[in-house]
Amino acid sequence: MKVQTASPIRQRGHLRLDATIAASASIVGPFEAKGPLGHLFDRVVQDDLCGQKSYERAEQCLLRGAVELLLDRAEVRATDVDMLIGGDLLDQITTTNFAGRDLGVPLLGVYSACATTSESLLLGALAVTSKAASTVVCATASHHLSAERQYRFPLELAVQRAPTAQWTATGGAAFLLGRADEGLARIVAATVGTVQDYGLKDPNNMGAAMAPAAADTVLRHLRARGQASRDYDLILTGDLARAGLPLLEELLGEEGEHPAHRLQDAGVLLYDPSQDVHAGGSGAACSALVLASLILPRLRRGELRRVLLVATGSLHSPRSYQQGETIPAVAHAVEMEAIV
Amino acid sequence: MKVQTASPIRQRGHLRLDATIAASASIVGPFEAKGPLGHLFDRVVQDDLCGQKSYERAEQCLLRGAVELLLDRAEVRATDVDMLIGGDLLDQITTTNFAGRDLGVPLLGVYSACATTSESLLLGALAVTSKAASTVVCATASHHLSAERQYRFPLELAVQRAPTAQWTATGGAAFLLGRADEGLARIVAATVGTVQDYGLKDPNNMGAAMAPAAADTVLRHLRARGQASRDYDLILTGDLARAGLPLLEELLGEEGEHPAHRLQDAGVLLYDPSQDVHAGGSGAACSALVLASLILPRLRRGELRRVLLVATGSLHSPRSYQQGETIPAVAHAVEMEAIV
Repeated sequence: MKVQTASPIRQRGHLRLDATIAASASIVGPFEAKGPLGHLFDRVVQDDLCGQKSYERAEQCLLRGAVELLLDRAEVRATDVDMLIGGDLLDQITTTNFAGRDLGVPLLGVYSACATTSESLLLGALAVTSKAASTVVCATASHHLSAERQYRFPLELAVQRAPTAQWTATGGAAFLLGRADEGLARIVAATVGTVQDYGLKDPNNMGAAMAPAAADTVLRHLRARGQASRDYDLILTGDLARAGLPLLEELLGEEGEHPAHRLQDAGVLLYDPSQDVHAGGSGAACSALVLASLILPRLRRGELRRVLLVATGSLHSPRSYQQGETIPAVAHAVEMEAIV
Repeated sequence: MKVQTASPIRQRGHLRLDATIAASASIVGPFEAKGPLGHLFDRVVQDDLCGQKSYERAEQCLLRGAVELLLDRAEVRATDVDMLIGGDLLDQITTTNFAGRDLGVPLLGVYSACATTSESLLLGALAVTSKAASTVVCATASHHLSAERQYRFPLELAVQRAPTAQWTATGGAAFLLGRADEGLARIVAATVGTVQDYGLKDPNNMGAAMAPAAADTVLRHLRARGQASRDYDLILTGDLARAGLPLLEELLGEEGEHPAHRLQDAGVLLYDPSQDVHAGGSGAACSALVLASLILPRLRRGELRRVLLVATGSLHSPRSYQQGETIPAVAHAVEMEAIV
């Protein structure tokens, strides 16, 4: 089915939105700081523990620190924030819930694995668009070492990684949404993803499991907008990485969409191949870090006019994998425009 | 600080909403069917496995079954649902994500433990109020045996339970939200909770950990509405159970609010003391089951005119407990009115 241009179709889960991303903030670990975007992050923590006694506490510091930096930068007090919408990868999203406790802001926890960034942005933009809230903070965080020992193996084992495996990013990012006329970019639309499952079972190849979800959401978003992929300066997926991105290109190509250089992936952008992260980055923070450090500044400067963020999430758990279940995946799309 | 009546105060996280709960559906396990509300549930599964090979799959069946029953009853096709908003207690909310895959509906996963029901209802009502969606399904599920082995002990150990411990309800419930003039009740307002942590560490006394969160949210909601607790026919918490409910009464009393018989708890209502569930019920489905089976029919019949649902969630994880962390908690309030 060829995507029609200039004739929008009503799509389930498609939202027209009008919210401004007023500010953003990003914090990364030392390894991420050595990557190609290293100089663009707002803060680098010097050790993986962030001075805490556990990697789980360190991850909370990354989320809380990103929000505090954001509020500082935007000169907004925590008591003026209507709500915080956020999530992370840890069981019972404890990172977000514990950081939310310390921040003292009304909190809505969300989870769609590495698609959590776009889920929180679309819900935040919905709250702003509807005038239910005037100031919303969206935040996500992940930590390589807490994810590694929750999802994969005890760190002490130093298990060899598969070529298609991805590297959970250590970092936190936060975004301030409101109705201001000035800011980094405007959120104008979003599409809620449907869960796709092609029967894959290998948690070391999440890119392949997530590519169909990304394709479905991109195509549904384009149809709802009456647009083609060439109408966007950038479609940023996160995080298909090097294993999943070619699969998405193939799936889009079958539907007549050939975004070529307009299609990029946060998991590919975050690390340099020399960093030996195999297929690339992942984690709830990965696409948020690339958005905050690279994409929003380019939107603000007008170098990009129109961007579709398509964060993708692999929805398995260690238990579902151990029970032999397949890996369902989801992708949520958030469309952003430069503020004229 | 005494609650002021008839002078609403702008509260962070307070939302004015206008959405109709058009229909509801509930499914429970055999043990819940033996409780005082047993005759009010729409369907009872005859065995805890629901014919599946794992309790985790059984839990997915409860959520999916509740949604399917809801859509059947409301004569709505899944392809006409704009989005499903839901969550559960399992790591990475796999119940919701796997059930969402089978339902094929745009899915937003949320998590605030046993407060997930009110989180999903308030977000669903927000999407409807803002006209971003016309038909939203909110759903939650929990399963005693999947929760027991995730949060506490292997089932085979048959560990003795503490007197303050709660019993995770086995069931699923779903609600259809829209803008229809007819239905079970209208959602008119909501308050997003802030995370409260009084430093308690005992996961076998979640009622005590959650009572401060419930008190904070009730008081903030009353202030935002310019109301007192006596203005409500019912304030339904879920799930403080017998250990937490008196603590909430005490905390509200300190602020001049004495709701007395108007304050009830879903965890107390779901089981009979003879069922030996100790402090009472809990679980993401608990307050949803009581809402669907007991409260919404009473609102529809006009026996209740105004109800405040205050679902409460204990935000710890097995890992956070093992690492010696305290138990943060949250409560989200959703105000419902009878449709005149």
